[in-house]
Amino acid sequence: MAIQKIGIIGLGLMGGSLSIELQRTLNDVYIIGLDHNKKHCSQALGLGLVDEIVQTLNEISKCDIIFLTIPVDGIITIANEIKISNDKFTIIDFGSTKEKISESIPKDIRANFVTAHPMTGTEKFGPTAAIDNLYTDKVVVLCDIEKSGVHQQEVAKKLFFGIGMKIVFMSAKEHDKHAAFISHMPHALSFSLANAVMKQEASASIIALAGGGFKDMSRIAKSSPNMWEDVFRQNRTNLLEAINAFQSELTKCQKMIENEEWDTLSSWMMEANTLHNILD
Amino acid sequence: MAIQKIGIIGLGLMGGSLSIELQRTLNDVYIIGLDHNKKHCSQALGLGLVDEIVQTLNEISKCDIIFLTIPVDGIITIANEIKISNDKFTIIDFGSTKEKISESIPKDIRANFVTAHPMTGTEKFGPTAAIDNLYTDKVVVLCDIEKSGVHQQEVAKKLFFGIGMKIVFMSAKEHDKHAAFISHMPHALSFSLANAVMKQEASASIIALAGGGFKDMSRIAKSSPNMWEDVFRQNRTNLLEAINAFQSELTKCQKMIENEEWDTLSSWMMEANTLHNILD
Repeated sequence: MAIQKIGIIGLGLMGGSLSIELQRTLNDVYIIGLDHNKKHCSQALGLGLVDEIVQTLNEISKCDIIFLTIPVDGIITIANEIKISNDKFTIIDFGSTKEKISESIPKDIRANFVTAHPMTGTEKFGPTAAIDNLYTDKVVVLCDIEKSGVHQQEVAKKLFFGIGMKIVFMSAKEHDKHAAFISHMPHALSFSLANAVMKQEASASIIALAGGGFKDMSRIAKSSPNMWEDVFRQNRTNLLEAINAFQSELTKCQKMIENEEWDTLSSWMMEANTLHNILD
Repeated sequence: MAIQKIGIIGLGLMGGSLSIELQRTLNDVYIIGLDHNKKHCSQALGLGLVDEIVQTLNEISKCDIIFLTIPVDGIITIANEIKISNDKFTIIDFGSTKEKISESIPKDIRANFVTAHPMTGTEKFGPTAAIDNLYTDKVVVLCDIEKSGVHQQEVAKKLFFGIGMKIVFMSAKEHDKHAAFISHMPHALSFSLANAVMKQEASASIIALAGGGFKDMSRIAKSSPNMWEDVFRQNRTNLLEAINAFQSELTKCQKMIENEEWDTLSSWMMEANTLHNILD
């Protein structure tokens, strides 16, 4: 079997960790990387995350498969710049929002695209953040899959199963509503929590007392503003709806405390407990 | 050296994990347990968390040292019921709020008490939740320490250093303000987040997409309503202040998204990032 050439555009946490998985699970794979950040390129080469670095979209388009592991606005730009001359060419994007991406891909190359969202990550970024098993046993959502070509659907499914992911199918519209609640709004909360504590006069003494609860709640406040600005912009309406839903619960909690309605508060906390009957 | 008798009232996560540490770090220690939950008593015996179970405060008061690892309201009740006949008798409570406890202890036995708050825990509860190293390298806050007897101060410091904790001193008033920000308010957020998602019509499909961020943010929504009702009641004013500070940041975030002020939003996220310059 010939060597399979796979391109990865964006050599950060997601792209770098993907490369580790692909190299482990595929025989004879050759990874070509592209990233506008020169330091990230040399780090990725040094860490063995890529076999070769190229400078242009034209060069990387010689691969059979390309992954786009960059912020969502960059994905839309590339979808509109890339030249495709081969029916079997497969582009898989990992954007955290999907509706605008799905709609922005030019119609004549829409079948070449598979729009995917792996529900995994860490708060770290850059090639040095790449880790083993970031994708193992995690969910990947494939959106508007009927718009992808039959070949491209098969390629994507085989690759995602190969690295141990669980595939869920969903429309891009539905995905964006759900992702607002399960990922984007929680990021807004974590950023808000970090800033609320940092702005206290005694912030250093407060933070010195941080235990596991606060560390977990504030972990994703370390995430890349560059990436999250894009996500918040692209999923603005759904995100605002999710923030409103959260605020209405927090306001309920606040009123129960103000009015000293302790029994009602306790029942409300018991309802929250039941989340963990359905979540690992 | 004679065997040291240590009593633990409350055989849950905190009391059980403490027993594991004490047994590991002290020679010749004999642990006596008391808990109103009969099932917890037999579990604690079965797990080797206690050497003996007793039924009354009088019996456990024969120990040299007693830890109170129960919800805060229970601590206040016991402080007012316990009979102390020995100047060296030491009671160390682990309540999550400290001002009302510190004030509620009868004056004639105030010196026997050390009011402590170990900044550690998990979302699990009961003796089966007890784990190794829950306290290792964690901070314990000793509050209003000047109100404890010299002997009691020495006993507490020796025990906490012995199990590998870092000791911080603070007034109970200051502790409660800080704990509201670093622990109590984040719990209110986590309960609110869990309920906001659970109340969505598509909650099951949303939760199926949960990644590490959501899991971390919602973990402490699994915490005991029984314990947290007490904490929220006892630290009501500080907690409401901390919730307000959080809400003002979240509202700021919401307005920037509504008004599409992306540069300002990005700077605000960068500020949140800096938390991690001072937090591990």
